Amino acid sequence: MLLRELAERIGEVTYERLPPPAVTVAKQGILDTVGVALAGAQEDTTAVVTSVLRKTAGEGPALIFGTRDCVDVLSAALINGTAAHALDFDDCSNSLGGHPSAPILPALFAIAPGSSGKAFIAAYAAGIECETRLARAVNFHHYEKGWHPTATLGTFGSAAACGHLLALNAERLAIALALAASMASGIKANFATMTKPFHVGHTTRNGLLAALLAKEGMTANTGALEHRQGFFAVYNGPGSFKPDRVLEHWADPFDLIDPGIAFKRHPCCASTHPAVDAMLHLREAHRLSPERVAKVESWTHPRRLAHTNRPHPQSGLDGKFSIQYALTRALMHGIVSIEHFSDAAVRDPAARALMARVTSTPDPAAKSETIDHFYCRLRITTTSGEVFQHFVDRPVGRDRDHPLPPGALEAKFRDCAKTVLDAAAVETLLTQCNAVETLPDMSDVLNVIASGVTPPAVATRSRAYA
Amino acid sequence: MLLRELAERIGEVTYERLPPPAVTVAKQGILDTVGVALAGAQEDTTAVVTSVLRKTAGEGPALIFGTRDCVDVLSAALINGTAAHALDFDDCSNSLGGHPSAPILPALFAIAPGSSGKAFIAAYAAGIECETRLARAVNFHHYEKGWHPTATLGTFGSAAACGHLLALNAERLAIALALAASMASGIKANFATMTKPFHVGHTTRNGLLAALLAKEGMTANTGALEHRQGFFAVYNGPGSFKPDRVLEHWADPFDLIDPGIAFKRHPCCASTHPAVDAMLHLREAHRLSPERVAKVESWTHPRRLAHTNRPHPQSGLDGKFSIQYALTRALMHGIVSIEHFSDAAVRDPAARALMARVTSTPDPAAKSETIDHFYCRLRITTTSGEVFQHFVDRPVGRDRDHPLPPGALEAKFRDCAKTVLDAAAVETLLTQCNAVETLPDMSDVLNVIASGVTPPAVATRSRAYA
Repeated sequence: MLLRELAERIGEVTYERLPPPAVTVAKQGILDTVGVALAGAQEDTTAVVTSVLRKTAGEGPALIFGTRDCVDVLSAALINGTAAHALDFDDCSNSLGGHPSAPILPALFAIAPGSSGKAFIAAYAAGIECETRLARAVNFHHYEKGWHPTATLGTFGSAAACGHLLALNAERLAIALALAASMASGIKANFATMTKPFHVGHTTRNGLLAALLAKEGMTANTGALEHRQGFFAVYNGPGSFKPDRVLEHWADPFDLIDPGIAFKRHPCCASTHPAVDAMLHLREAHRLSPERVAKVESWTHPRRLAHTNRPHPQSGLDGKFSIQYALTRALMHGIVSIEHFSDAAVRDPAARALMARVTSTPDPAAKSETIDHFYCRLRITTTSGEVFQHFVDRPVGRDRDHPLPPGALEAKFRDCAKTVLDAAAVETLLTQCNAVETLPDMSDVLNVIASGVTPPAVATRSRAYA
Repeated sequence: MLLRELAERIGEVTYERLPPPAVTVAKQGILDTVGVALAGAQEDTTAVVTSVLRKTAGEGPALIFGTRDCVDVLSAALINGTAAHALDFDDCSNSLGGHPSAPILPALFAIAPGSSGKAFIAAYAAGIECETRLARAVNFHHYEKGWHPTATLGTFGSAAACGHLLALNAERLAIALALAASMASGIKANFATMTKPFHVGHTTRNGLLAALLAKEGMTANTGALEHRQGFFAVYNGPGSFKPDRVLEHWADPFDLIDPGIAFKRHPCCASTHPAVDAMLHLREAHRLSPERVAKVESWTHPRRLAHTNRPHPQSGLDGKFSIQYALTRALMHGIVSIEHFSDAAVRDPAARALMARVTSTPDPAAKSETIDHFYCRLRITTTSGEVFQHFVDRPVGRDRDHPLPPGALEAKFRDCAKTVLDAAAVETLLTQCNAVETLPDMSDVLNVIASGVTPPAVATRSRAYA
C-alpha cells in the first residue's frame, strides 16, 4: 500500500525537521504565490469562476483574495487557486513539469486561520514533496502524454498539504490521497484558454475536499496508485512509470532544495525573458535612459522568436508575446510590470516611439537540434555612438544556477500586490511573508490581505439559479 | 471540432422530436433514479459527503433528497449524485458500461425549478445520448483500462443535460463539454469503497459546473476530444478509440431505445438475481409459502457462486452477497427489499430458520469459457413431497429480451421511496413520475419529495472549518 507509506512520510514532515534552505525557499514560494494570486484576482478567468461560485458558495471563514469577502473553504480554494495561475506568472518546478505552489497554497490559506506560520510552512513543504516525488514516478511520460501535471499531480499535493494541516493520521491521510487519485484531471488540449487556470482552481479545491472527506470518515483504496486499475496504470499506462521513485529519495534532499522552485521574473512570455534580462543588465551597468538610446538589436533563437516577433502589438495580450515591446518597457522603467500589459499601455505613444528603435532578429548561428535555445544576444547603440553588448544564456530565476538577483522577488511581489492592495498593506504583507515562521496565527496574513484592499470591495453577492 | 458538432446535435433534441418509446424509457429512468436516490440518501457514504458539504454549501434552491433542506445547486448535485449510486441499485447501460442516469438526473433536479416536465425529459434524453455515443467511441477499452465510465463519461452526460436545460447555444454547450473533458475522473481501483458512489456525485456536480461556467463566459478548446493531447488520446490512448462513432448513429435510434436502459430489480448482488427471479416465479406459480417448503436447492455458475455462497451471513452487507439469504427473503415475502439488508434483519430468527433449508451448489455442468454465466436452476421440494423446478437464463431487467414484469419497477420504487417518504407522498410521486411530461413545473415533484419526508427532517446545519 504505497499511499499508506507515503502518508507516513508526509506525517513525519515537521517545521523543526526542515533544513533552513527548505524553509527559505518555502517562504519565497509563499511570498510569490500570494503576489501572483492577488494580481490574478483581477483577471477575466478569475472573474468568470468567481461569478459562478458567488452564486453557490456558502458562508465561511475563507477570504476571496482581492476582496474583503469570505466564503466557504472549498469555494475559496477554487477561486483563489484559479487566481494564482490566472496570469501564468506563478512558480515552476522542473520535477513536476508544472507549477508546484498554486494547487497547494490557496487551499492551505482557506483552512489556515488558527494555524501557526510554522505549521503552515510544514504543510506546504509536505505538499510540495508529495507531488514532486509522485512526479518522479510518472514524468515525463505523464507530461508528454497530455496531462496537465500541475492539475493531476497537484491534486495529491493539495490533499497532502491540507491533510497535514488538518493533522490527519496516516490512515486518514492515505485515504485522502486515494480520493485524490479519483479526482485528478486536466488535459493540455485546453491550454491557452481560461480552462487552464481553472484546472488549478479545480485541483486546489479537490485536494482540500479529499482531505475533508477523509477526515469525516470516507473510505477508499490505499492501494489506488499501484492497483492494476489504479493511478499509475490508468493515467500513465503499463511500463511508463517507476513506483520506487516515490519514496527513494524522499526528503533527501527536499525537492524545495534540489531542484528547488523556479520563479518567473517578468509577467510576459518566457521566451522574451532572456532579452529582458539582458536589457536590465545593460541599463543598470551603463545607466541608460531611453533618451540616450538610438538603437536596440536582439538576436534570439528562431524557435523562440517565432511567436514573440511582434513589432506592432495591438493589445495587452499581444504585448505579452512581443519581444520588442518587452524590451521597450524594460528600457523605460527598469522593470517589466503587470500594468504594462493593459491595452492602453500597449498603445502608449511614448512606448511606441521608443519601440520603433527596437529590432529583433533570429540568431543566424542558431542550431535547430539544441535544447539551449533560451538565450539572447543584445546590442544597444547610444545616440553618441557607444555600443554595449550583453549575452544571457538562460533567464534568471529559471534554475539554481541562475538565481534571481537580490530584491527581484520582492520587486515582483510589490508589482503584483499593488494591483489590489494599498501601499501600507503591500509592505506589511511583504514583511509577514518574509517571516512566516514567526507568526502565531496565519489569520494575521489574511487580515492584512483583506483590510488592505483598495478601493474597498463592496459586498455584491448575487444569488441566482433559482 | 467534434464537440461543436456534438453540441449542435444535442441542441436539436426536443421533447417533440423524441419517439414515444424513448419517452417511456426516460420516464422509467426518472422514476427509478428518484427511488434509488431517496433510499441512497440514508447510506453511510451519503452521510459522510453530506456532512462535509453541509459545512460548505451555500444557500440555494436545490433540495437535498431525503431531507427538507435546500442548498446551492452544485452541493445538491454532489450530494444527490452520491445518493443515487450509494446502493449500487441504479440503472445500467450496456453502451456506457456503467450507470447512465445517476450522473445526470440529480444535476437536472438541482436546476429543475421553473422547467417543464417536457423540457426535463428532453434534457435527460440529450444527456443520455451524449454520454452513450461518446462511450461507443471509447469502449470497451476505456472500461477495461480502469476508468469508471459512469464517472468519466457521465461528466459529459451531466454537462450536456444541464447545458440543454439551461438553453445554452451550441457554442456555449461545446465549451461546457470541453470543460467536462478536463474534469473527467474516477478509477476502478476505488471500487468497493465509499469513493465509488462519491465518483458519481463528483461527476454530477462537475457536469453542472461545466455548464454554469460555460454560460458565464468561460473559454475552452472545442477540439478537446480529438486534439493530440485531448480526451481520446489522453484517456484512451492512440489507436484505442473511434471518433466517428460519436455521431454515426446519433439518435438513430436513441440509445434510450436501443439498447435501452437496464433496471436492477433486487437490492442485492447481481449474481444472486437469477436465483431470486426463479424463486419469485415458483412462489407465484405454485402459491408457495415458507411453511410448505422443505428444501430449496440452487445451482449457479461457480464464477457467480464464488462470492455469493454465504450460508451464514453476519451483517446486512454480508447478506447482500448471500444467495441463501436472498432466496430466503424472496420466499418469505415475494420481494427482496432494502429493509432486508439491515444487520438486524439478517439476524432475524425466522429468516435464519428458513435459511437452514436452503443449499446452493456450483453447477457441475458449468463451462468456464462461457459468458452465459448469469443463470440459475432452482429446485423446491415441499413438505408433502412435491418437487418444482425452474430455470432462469438471465435476470429480468438486464436487457430488452428480459423486461421487468409489469409492476416490478413500481414495486421497487415504493420499496425505495418509503424508506424516507410517507405513504401518500410515495404514491403522489409515483403518479408524477409516470406523467412527467404533463407537469408544468418540475418544482411540483421536488415539493412532494421535500414535504413527504418522514419523520420531518430537523434543520441541523452545522458550520465549521472556522
